[in-house]
Amino acid sequence: MKRAVVLLSGGLDSATALAFAQAQGFECFALSFDYGQRHRIELQRAKEQAELRKVGKHVVVNIDLRTFGGSALTADIDVPKDRTEAHMAEEIPITYVPARNTVFLSFALAWAEVLEAKDIFIGVNALDYSGYPDCRPEFISAYEAMANLATKAGVEGQKLTIHTPLIDLTKAQIIQMGLETGVDYAKTSSCYDPSEDGRPCRRCDSCKLRERGFEQLGRIDPLVEQFVKIGG
Amino acid sequence: MKRAVVLLSGGLDSATALAFAQAQGFECFALSFDYGQRHRIELQRAKEQAELRKVGKHVVVNIDLRTFGGSALTADIDVPKDRTEAHMAEEIPITYVPARNTVFLSFALAWAEVLEAKDIFIGVNALDYSGYPDCRPEFISAYEAMANLATKAGVEGQKLTIHTPLIDLTKAQIIQMGLETGVDYAKTSSCYDPSEDGRPCRRCDSCKLRERGFEQLGRIDPLVEQFVKIGG
Repeated sequence: MKRAVVLLSGGLDSATALAFAQAQGFECFALSFDYGQRHRIELQRAKEQAELRKVGKHVVVNIDLRTFGGSALTADIDVPKDRTEAHMAEEIPITYVPARNTVFLSFALAWAEVLEAKDIFIGVNALDYSGYPDCRPEFISAYEAMANLATKAGVEGQKLTIHTPLIDLTKAQIIQMGLETGVDYAKTSSCYDPSEDGRPCRRCDSCKLRERGFEQLGRIDPLVEQFVKIGG
Repeated sequence: MKRAVVLLSGGLDSATALAFAQAQGFECFALSFDYGQRHRIELQRAKEQAELRKVGKHVVVNIDLRTFGGSALTADIDVPKDRTEAHMAEEIPITYVPARNTVFLSFALAWAEVLEAKDIFIGVNALDYSGYPDCRPEFISAYEAMANLATKAGVEGQKLTIHTPLIDLTKAQIIQMGLETGVDYAKTSSCYDPSEDGRPCRRCDSCKLRERGFEQLGRIDPLVEQFVKIGG
Protein backbone atom coordinates (compact mmCIF):
# COMPACT_ATOMS: atom_id res chain seq x y z
CA MET A 1 0.00 0.00 0.00
CA LYS A 2 1.33 3.42 -0.94
CA ARG A 3 1.89 5.74 2.00
CA ALA A 4 0.72 9.33 2.20
CA VAL A 5 1.11 12.06 4.79
CA VAL A 6 -2.18 13.87 5.41
CA LEU A 7 -2.38 17.22 7.18
CA LEU A 8 -5.21 16.82 9.67
CA SER A 9 -6.37 19.88 11.57
CA GLY A 10 -9.57 18.31 12.84
CA GLY A 11 -11.66 20.64 10.70
CA LEU A 12 -14.24 19.76 8.08
CA ASP A 13 -11.87 20.13 5.15
CA SER A 14 -8.97 18.06 6.42
CA ALA A 15 -11.28 15.28 7.67
CA THR A 16 -12.66 15.11 4.13
CA ALA A 17 -9.19 15.13 2.57
CA LEU A 18 -8.18 12.21 4.82
CA ALA A 19 -11.25 10.18 3.84
CA PHE A 20 -10.58 10.97 0.18
CA ALA A 21 -6.93 9.87 0.42
CA GLN A 22 -7.99 6.58 1.98
CA ALA A 23 -10.62 6.07 -0.72
CA GLN A 24 -7.78 6.50 -3.24
CA GLY A 25 -6.00 3.54 -1.65
CA PHE A 26 -3.34 5.28 0.42
CA GLU A 27 -2.15 4.17 3.84
CA CYS A 28 -2.43 7.50 5.63
CA PHE A 29 -0.13 9.07 8.22
CA ALA A 30 -1.92 11.98 9.85
CA LEU A 31 -0.05 15.09 10.96
CA SER A 32 -1.49 17.73 13.29
CA PHE A 33 0.03 20.80 14.92
CA ASP A 34 -0.28 22.29 18.32
CA TYR A 35 0.66 25.83 17.32
CA GLY A 36 -0.91 27.73 20.16
CA GLN A 37 -4.23 28.04 18.35
CA ARG A 38 -7.06 29.32 20.49
CA HIS A 39 -9.46 26.80 18.94
CA ARG A 40 -7.75 23.88 20.65
CA ILE A 41 -10.79 21.60 20.40
CA GLU A 42 -9.46 21.03 16.86
CA LEU A 43 -6.69 18.82 18.21
CA GLN A 44 -9.18 16.63 20.05
CA ARG A 45 -11.19 16.32 16.84
CA ALA A 46 -8.04 15.47 14.87
CA LYS A 47 -7.34 12.67 17.33
CA GLU A 48 -10.89 11.38 16.99
CA GLN A 49 -10.73 11.46 13.18
CA ALA A 50 -7.36 9.68 13.19
CA GLU A 51 -8.84 6.94 15.40
CA LEU A 52 -12.07 6.64 13.42
CA ARG A 53 -10.05 6.36 10.24
CA LYS A 54 -7.48 3.92 11.66
CA VAL A 55 -4.53 5.82 10.20
CA GLY A 56 -1.03 4.28 10.14
CA LYS A 57 0.10 6.78 12.75
CA HIS A 58 -1.03 10.16 14.05
CA VAL A 59 1.61 12.65 15.14
CA VAL A 60 0.95 15.99 16.81
CA VAL A 61 3.92 18.32 16.45
CA ASN A 62 4.34 21.14 18.94
CA ILE A 63 5.32 24.40 17.27
CA ASP A 64 4.69 27.65 18.94
CA LEU A 65 3.80 30.17 16.26
CA ARG A 66 2.79 32.57 19.07
CA THR A 67 6.50 33.33 19.35
CA PHE A 68 6.07 35.47 16.27
CA GLY A 69 2.53 36.80 16.88
CA GLY A 70 0.60 38.51 14.13
CA SER A 71 -2.67 36.53 13.87
CA ALA A 72 -6.05 36.49 15.57
CA LEU A 73 -5.79 32.71 15.76
CA THR A 74 -2.65 32.76 17.88
CA ALA A 75 -2.42 36.24 19.41
CA ASP A 76 -4.71 38.21 21.64
CA ILE A 77 -6.71 39.78 18.81
CA ASP A 78 -10.50 39.42 18.47
CA VAL A 79 -11.79 36.96 15.89
CA PRO A 80 -14.05 38.90 13.48
CA LYS A 81 -17.74 37.98 13.71
CA ASP A 82 -20.91 38.45 11.63
CA ARG A 83 -19.11 39.44 8.45
CA THR A 84 -20.85 39.13 5.09
CA GLU A 85 -19.30 36.93 2.43
CA ALA A 86 -18.50 40.02 0.36
CA HIS A 87 -16.55 41.39 3.31
CA MET A 88 -14.75 38.05 3.81
CA ALA A 89 -13.56 38.14 0.20
CA GLU A 90 -12.23 41.69 0.44
CA GLU A 91 -8.90 41.26 2.14
CA ILE A 92 -6.53 38.82 3.79
CA PRO A 93 -8.27 38.18 7.10
CA ILE A 94 -6.69 38.78 10.49
CA THR A 95 -7.20 35.06 11.17
CA TYR A 96 -4.47 34.37 8.63
CA VAL A 97 -1.47 32.83 10.42
CA PRO A 98 1.81 33.95 8.84
CA ALA A 99 3.24 31.27 6.58
CA ARG A 100 1.16 28.59 8.32
CA ASN A 101 0.68 26.24 5.39
CA THR A 102 4.32 26.69 4.40
CA VAL A 103 5.36 25.60 7.87
CA PHE A 104 2.85 22.72 7.99
CA LEU A 105 3.84 21.41 4.57
CA SER A 106 7.50 21.55 5.54
CA PHE A 107 6.89 19.20 8.45
CA ALA A 108 4.79 16.98 6.19
CA LEU A 109 7.72 16.91 3.77
CA ALA A 110 10.15 15.92 6.53
CA TRP A 111 7.90 13.09 7.68
CA ALA A 112 7.20 11.96 4.10
CA GLU A 113 10.92 11.71 3.54
CA VAL A 114 11.39 9.49 6.59
CA LEU A 115 8.35 7.35 5.67
CA GLU A 116 9.46 7.18 2.05
CA ALA A 117 6.02 8.48 1.14
CA LYS A 118 5.70 10.24 -2.21
CA ASP A 119 2.32 11.83 -1.55
CA ILE A 120 1.08 14.59 0.74
CA PHE A 121 -2.57 15.57 1.09
CA ILE A 122 -3.70 19.00 2.25
CA GLY A 123 -7.31 20.14 2.44
CA VAL A 124 -6.83 23.68 1.19
CA ASN A 125 -9.65 25.32 -0.64
CA ALA A 126 -9.36 28.35 -2.88
CA LEU A 127 -12.95 28.83 -3.93
CA ASP A 128 -14.99 29.41 -0.82
CA TYR A 129 -12.27 31.30 0.94
CA SER A 130 -9.71 32.94 -1.25
CA GLY A 131 -8.30 35.36 1.34
CA TYR A 132 -5.36 33.20 2.40
CA PRO A 133 -2.35 33.47 0.08
CA ASP A 134 -1.16 29.99 1.04
CA CYS A 135 -4.39 28.31 -0.10
CA ARG A 136 -3.99 29.25 -3.76
CA PRO A 137 -3.20 26.70 -6.48
CA GLU A 138 -0.15 28.69 -7.60
CA PHE A 139 1.28 28.49 -4.10
CA ILE A 140 0.78 24.71 -3.99
CA SER A 141 2.45 24.28 -7.41
CA ALA A 142 5.43 26.35 -6.32
CA TYR A 143 5.64 24.40 -3.07
CA GLU A 144 5.64 21.10 -4.93
CA ALA A 145 8.41 22.31 -7.26
CA MET A 146 10.49 23.37 -4.27
CA ALA A 147 9.82 20.13 -2.38
CA ASN A 148 11.09 18.11 -5.31
CA LEU A 149 14.44 19.88 -4.99
CA ALA A 150 14.56 19.80 -1.19
CA THR A 151 14.82 16.12 -0.47
CA LYS A 152 16.80 12.98 -1.10
CA ALA A 153 13.89 11.53 -3.07
CA GLY A 154 13.84 14.61 -5.31
CA VAL A 155 17.56 14.30 -5.96
CA GLU A 156 17.06 10.66 -6.83
CA GLY A 157 14.36 11.57 -9.34
CA GLN A 158 11.32 10.36 -7.40
CA LYS A 159 8.44 12.73 -7.80
CA LEU A 160 6.64 13.98 -4.72
CA THR A 161 3.04 15.07 -5.26
CA ILE A 162 1.04 17.48 -3.13
CA HIS A 163 -2.60 16.56 -3.49
CA THR A 164 -5.27 19.21 -2.96
CA PRO A 165 -8.50 17.31 -3.64
CA LEU A 166 -10.69 20.13 -2.30
CA ILE A 167 -9.03 23.10 -3.93
CA ASP A 168 -11.72 23.81 -6.53
CA LEU A 169 -14.74 22.60 -4.59
CA THR A 170 -17.44 24.65 -2.89
CA LYS A 171 -18.05 23.92 0.78
CA ALA A 172 -21.22 22.05 -0.23
CA GLN A 173 -19.25 19.90 -2.68
CA ILE A 174 -16.65 19.14 0.00
CA ILE A 175 -19.35 18.03 2.42
CA GLN A 176 -20.93 15.91 -0.32
CA MET A 177 -17.56 14.23 -0.92
CA GLY A 178 -17.18 13.59 2.81
CA LEU A 179 -20.65 12.14 3.16
CA GLU A 180 -19.89 9.74 0.32
CA THR A 181 -16.67 8.60 2.00
CA GLY A 182 -18.29 8.29 5.43
CA VAL A 183 -16.89 11.31 7.29
CA ASP A 184 -18.49 11.87 10.70
CA TYR A 185 -18.78 15.66 10.70
CA ALA A 186 -20.05 15.70 14.28
CA LYS A 187 -16.43 14.92 15.17
CA THR A 188 -14.90 17.88 13.37
CA SER A 189 -14.47 21.49 14.43
CA SER A 190 -14.32 24.51 12.14
CA CYS A 191 -15.01 27.43 14.49
CA TYR A 192 -12.27 30.01 15.08
CA ASP A 193 -13.64 30.88 18.50
CA PRO A 194 -15.45 27.88 19.99
CA SER A 195 -16.42 27.56 23.63
CA GLU A 196 -14.40 25.17 25.76
CA ASP A 197 -16.73 22.23 25.17
CA GLY A 198 -16.35 22.70 21.39
CA ARG A 199 -19.61 24.53 20.78
CA PRO A 200 -19.20 26.56 17.54
CA CYS A 201 -19.87 30.32 17.76
CA ARG A 202 -21.84 30.22 14.46
CA ARG A 203 -20.75 33.81 13.78
CA CYS A 204 -17.12 33.68 12.64
CA ASP A 205 -16.28 33.39 8.93
CA SER A 206 -15.51 29.70 9.23
CA CYS A 207 -18.81 28.84 10.98
CA LYS A 208 -20.79 30.84 8.45
CA LEU A 209 -19.19 29.16 5.44
CA ARG A 210 -19.71 25.74 6.99
CA GLU A 211 -23.35 26.46 7.77
CA ARG A 212 -24.01 27.65 4.25
CA GLY A 213 -22.45 24.48 2.85
CA PHE A 214 -24.80 22.24 4.82
CA GLU A 215 -27.75 24.49 3.95
CA GLN A 216 -27.03 24.18 0.24
CA LEU A 217 -27.22 20.41 0.58
CA GLY A 218 -30.48 20.72 2.51
CA ARG A 219 -28.84 19.14 5.56
CA ILE A 220 -28.34 20.03 9.17
CA ASP A 221 -24.72 20.11 10.37
CA PRO A 222 -24.50 17.21 12.83
CA LEU A 223 -22.09 19.25 14.97
CA VAL A 224 -24.62 22.07 15.39
CA GLU A 225 -27.43 19.56 15.86
CA GLN A 226 -25.55 17.93 18.69
CA PHE A 227 -25.28 21.20 20.62
CA VAL A 228 -28.86 22.22 19.86
CA LYS A 229 -29.97 18.89 21.35
CA ILE A 230 -28.13 19.47 24.59
CA GLY A 231 -29.71 22.90 24.77
CA GLY A 232 -28.13 25.66 22.75
CA MET B 1 17.13 50.40 8.75
CA LYS B 2 15.91 47.45 6.69
CA ARG B 3 15.15 44.36 8.69
CA ALA B 4 16.36 40.85 7.88
CA VAL B 5 15.78 37.46 9.45
CA VAL B 6 19.04 35.51 9.76
CA LEU B 7 19.12 31.77 10.42
CA LEU B 8 21.73 31.33 13.14
CA SER B 9 22.76 27.81 14.08
CA GLY B 10 25.81 28.88 16.05
CA GLY B 11 28.12 27.29 13.49
CA LEU B 12 30.91 28.90 11.52
CA ASP B 13 28.80 29.50 8.41
CA SER B 14 25.77 31.12 10.00
CA ALA B 15 27.92 33.34 12.25
CA THR B 16 29.60 34.57 9.07
CA ALA B 17 26.27 35.08 7.29
CA LEU B 18 25.04 37.18 10.23
CA ALA B 19 28.15 39.38 10.19
CA PHE B 20 27.81 39.76 6.43
CA ALA B 21 24.14 40.79 6.67
CA GLN B 22 25.01 43.41 9.26
CA ALA B 23 27.85 44.69 7.09
CA GLN B 24 25.25 45.11 4.34
CA GLY B 25 23.30 47.45 6.59
CA PHE B 26 20.49 45.18 7.79
CA GLU B 27 19.00 45.21 11.27
CA CYS B 28 19.18 41.48 11.94
CA PHE B 29 16.69 39.23 13.73
CA ALA B 30 18.36 35.93 14.54
CA LEU B 31 16.45 32.66 14.47
CA SER B 32 17.72 29.41 15.97
CA PHE B 33 16.12 26.01 16.43
CA ASP B 34 16.15 23.53 19.22
CA TYR B 35 15.35 20.48 17.11
CA GLY B 36 16.69 17.78 19.34
CA GLN B 37 20.17 17.99 17.81
CA ARG B 38 22.83 16.07 19.69
CA HIS B 39 25.29 18.92 19.20
CA ARG B 40 23.42 21.19 21.59
CA ILE B 41 26.43 23.38 22.31
CA GLU B 42 25.40 25.03 19.01
CA LEU B 43 22.50 26.77 20.74
CA GLN B 44 24.80 28.25 23.37
CA ARG B 45 27.07 29.50 20.60
CA ALA B 46 24.09 30.96 18.72
CA LYS B 47 23.13 32.87 21.87
CA GLU B 48 26.69 34.16 22.25
CA GLN B 49 26.84 35.27 18.60
CA ALA B 50 23.47 37.01 18.88
CA GLU B 51 24.71 38.90 21.93
CA LEU B 52 28.10 39.76 20.44
CA ARG B 53 26.38 41.04 17.34
CA LYS B 54 23.64 42.94 19.20
CA VAL B 55 20.85 41.63 17.00
CA GLY B 56 17.35 43.17 17.11
CA LYS B 57 16.03 39.99 18.71
CA HIS B 58 17.11 36.36 19.01
CA VAL B 59 14.41 33.71 19.03
CA VAL B 60 14.97 30.00 19.63
CA VAL B 61 12.07 27.94 18.33
CA ASN B 62 11.48 24.49 19.77
CA ILE B 63 10.68 21.94 17.10
CA ASP B 64 11.20 18.31 17.73
CA LEU B 65 12.37 16.72 14.50
CA ARG B 66 13.17 13.58 16.50
CA THR B 67 9.46 12.79 16.22
CA PHE B 68 10.19 11.71 12.67
CA GLY B 69 13.67 10.22 13.14
CA GLY B 70 15.86 9.41 10.16
CA SER B 71 19.10 11.32 10.81
CA ALA B 72 22.34 10.77 12.73
CA LEU B 73 22.01 14.33 14.06
CA THR B 74 18.70 13.65 15.79
CA ALA B 75 18.38 9.87 16.13
CA ASP B 76 20.49 7.24 17.81
CA ILE B 77 22.75 6.62 14.81
CA ASP B 78 26.55 7.03 14.92
CA VAL B 79 28.03 10.15 13.36
CA PRO B 80 30.53 9.03 10.67
CA LYS B 81 34.16 9.78 11.49
CA ASP B 82 37.47 9.95 9.65
CA ARG B 83 35.98 10.03 6.17
CA THR B 84 37.99 11.32 3.23
CA GLU B 85 36.64 14.26 1.26
CA ALA B 86 36.06 11.97 -1.72
CA HIS B 87 33.90 9.78 0.48
CA MET B 88 32.02 12.82 1.83
CA ALA B 89 31.13 13.87 -1.71
CA GLU B 90 29.84 10.43 -2.69
CA GLU B 91 26.36 10.39 -1.22
CA ILE B 92 23.85 12.22 0.89
CA PRO B 93 25.28 11.77 4.38
CA ILE B 94 23.43 10.18 7.27
CA THR B 95 23.83 13.49 9.11
CA TYR B 96 21.31 14.99 6.67
CA VAL B 97 18.17 15.94 8.60
CA PRO B 98 15.05 15.40 6.47
CA ALA B 99 13.77 18.68 5.05
CA ARG B 100 15.65 20.65 7.69
CA ASN B 101 16.36 23.80 5.69
CA THR B 102 12.83 23.73 4.30
CA VAL B 103 11.47 23.70 7.84
CA PHE B 104 13.92 26.36 9.05
CA LEU B 105 13.22 28.69 6.13
CA SER B 106 9.48 28.30 6.70
CA PHE B 107 9.80 29.63 10.23
CA ALA B 108 12.06 32.41 8.95
CA LEU B 109 9.36 33.27 6.43
CA ALA B 110 6.69 33.38 9.14
CA TRP B 111 8.78 35.69 11.29
CA ALA B 112 9.77 37.85 8.32
CA GLU B 113 6.12 38.33 7.55
CA VAL B 114 5.36 39.50 11.08
CA LEU B 115 8.44 41.78 11.14
CA GLU B 116 7.64 43.06 7.65
CA ALA B 117 11.15 42.07 6.69
CA LYS B 118 11.78 41.41 3.00
CA ASP B 119 15.11 39.67 3.43
CA ILE B 120 16.18 36.31 4.83
CA PHE B 121 19.82 35.22 5.18
CA ILE B 122 20.88 31.59 5.30
CA GLY B 123 24.49 30.39 5.44
CA VAL B 124 24.15 27.41 3.13
CA ASN B 125 27.15 26.37 1.13
CA ALA B 126 27.07 24.21 -1.96
CA LEU B 127 30.74 24.00 -2.79
CA ASP B 128 32.53 22.48 0.14
CA TYR B 129 29.70 20.19 1.02
CA SER B 130 27.37 19.34 -1.78
CA GLY B 131 25.78 16.27 -0.21
CA TYR B 132 22.72 18.02 1.22
CA PRO B 133 19.93 18.53 -1.33
CA ASP B 134 18.61 21.56 0.56
CA CYS B 135 21.90 23.46 0.27
CA ARG B 136 21.82 23.69 -3.52
CA PRO B 137 21.22 26.96 -5.38
CA GLU B 138 18.30 25.47 -7.32
CA PHE B 139 16.59 24.59 -4.05
CA ILE B 140 17.02 28.15 -2.74
CA SER B 141 15.64 29.64 -5.98
CA ALA B 142 12.61 27.36 -5.84
CA TYR B 143 12.10 28.22 -2.18
CA GLU B 144 12.21 31.93 -2.92
CA ALA B 145 9.65 31.55 -5.73
CA MET B 146 7.35 29.63 -3.40
CA ALA B 147 7.82 32.14 -0.57
CA ASN B 148 6.76 34.96 -2.83
CA LEU B 149 3.43 33.23 -3.35
CA ALA B 150 2.99 32.13 0.27
CA THR B 151 2.62 35.42 2.07
CA LYS B 152 0.64 38.63 2.25
CA ALA B 153 3.70 40.58 1.09
CA GLY B 154 3.97 38.35 -1.95
CA VAL B 155 0.31 38.90 -2.79
CA GLU B 156 0.85 42.63 -2.47
CA GLY B 157 3.77 42.47 -4.90
CA GLN B 158 6.61 42.98 -2.42
CA LYS B 159 9.55 40.82 -3.28
CA LEU B 160 11.10 38.64 -0.61
CA THR B 161 14.74 37.72 -1.16
CA ILE B 162 16.59 34.76 0.28
CA HIS B 163 20.25 35.68 0.53
CA THR B 164 22.89 32.98 0.43
CA PRO B 165 26.14 34.94 0.65
CA LEU B 166 28.25 31.81 1.25
CA ILE B 167 26.76 29.52 -1.36
CA ASP B 168 29.68 29.61 -3.81
CA LEU B 169 32.51 30.09 -1.34
CA THR B 170 35.08 27.60 -0.13
CA LYS B 171 35.38 27.15 3.61
CA ALA B 172 38.60 29.18 3.51
CA GLN B 173 36.81 32.02 1.70
CA ILE B 174 33.98 31.95 4.24
CA ILE B 175 36.45 32.21 7.11
CA GLN B 176 38.22 35.05 5.30
CA MET B 177 34.89 36.89 4.97
CA GLY B 178 34.19 36.35 8.66
CA LEU B 179 37.59 37.56 9.74
CA GLU B 180 37.05 40.75 7.73
CA THR B 181 33.70 41.36 9.41
CA GLY B 182 34.99 40.57 12.89
CA VAL B 183 33.49 37.15 13.59
CA ASP B 184 34.79 35.53 16.78
CA TYR B 185 35.13 31.92 15.63
CA ALA B 186 36.09 30.75 19.12
CA LYS B 187 32.41 31.28 19.90
CA THR B 188 31.07 29.04 17.14
CA SER B 189 30.60 25.28 17.01
CA SER B 190 30.69 23.12 13.89
CA CYS B 191 31.23 19.61 15.26
CA TYR B 192 28.49 17.01 14.79
CA ASP B 193 29.58 15.11 17.87
CA PRO B 194 31.19 17.48 20.38
CA SER B 195 31.85 16.64 24.01
CA GLU B 196 29.63 18.28 26.58
CA ASP B 197 31.96 21.23 27.14
CA GLY B 198 31.91 21.95 23.39
CA ARG B 199 35.23 20.36 22.51
CA PRO B 200 35.15 19.44 18.78
CA CYS B 201 35.84 15.78 17.89
CA ARG B 202 38.09 16.85 14.96
CA ARG B 203 37.11 13.67 13.11
CA CYS B 204 33.58 14.20 11.75
CA ASP B 205 33.05 15.65 8.26
CA SER B 206 32.20 19.07 9.62
CA CYS B 207 35.31 19.30 11.82
CA LYS B 208 37.54 18.16 8.98
CA LEU B 209 36.18 20.71 6.51
CA ARG B 210 36.53 23.48 9.08
CA GLU B 211 40.09 22.49 9.91
CA ARG B 212 41.07 22.43 6.25
CA GLY B 213 39.58 25.91 5.80
CA PHE B 214 41.72 27.40 8.54
CA GLU B 215 44.78 25.49 7.27
CA GLN B 216 44.37 26.92 3.79
CA LEU B 217 44.48 30.40 5.29
CA GLY B 218 47.56 29.47 7.31
CA ARG B 219 45.64 30.04 10.53
CA ILE B 220 44.84 28.08 13.64
CA ASP B 221 41.14 27.70 14.45
CA PRO B 222 40.68 29.71 17.67
CA LEU B 223 38.12 27.12 18.85
CA VAL B 224 40.64 24.29 18.58
CA GLU B 225 43.38 26.49 20.05
CA GLN B 226 41.24 27.19 23.08
CA PHE B 227 40.84 23.48 23.86
CA VAL B 228 44.49 22.71 23.11
CA LYS B 229 45.43 25.38 25.65
CA ILE B 230 43.32 23.87 28.39
CA GLY B 231 44.91 20.50 27.62
CA GLY B 232 43.66 18.60 24.66
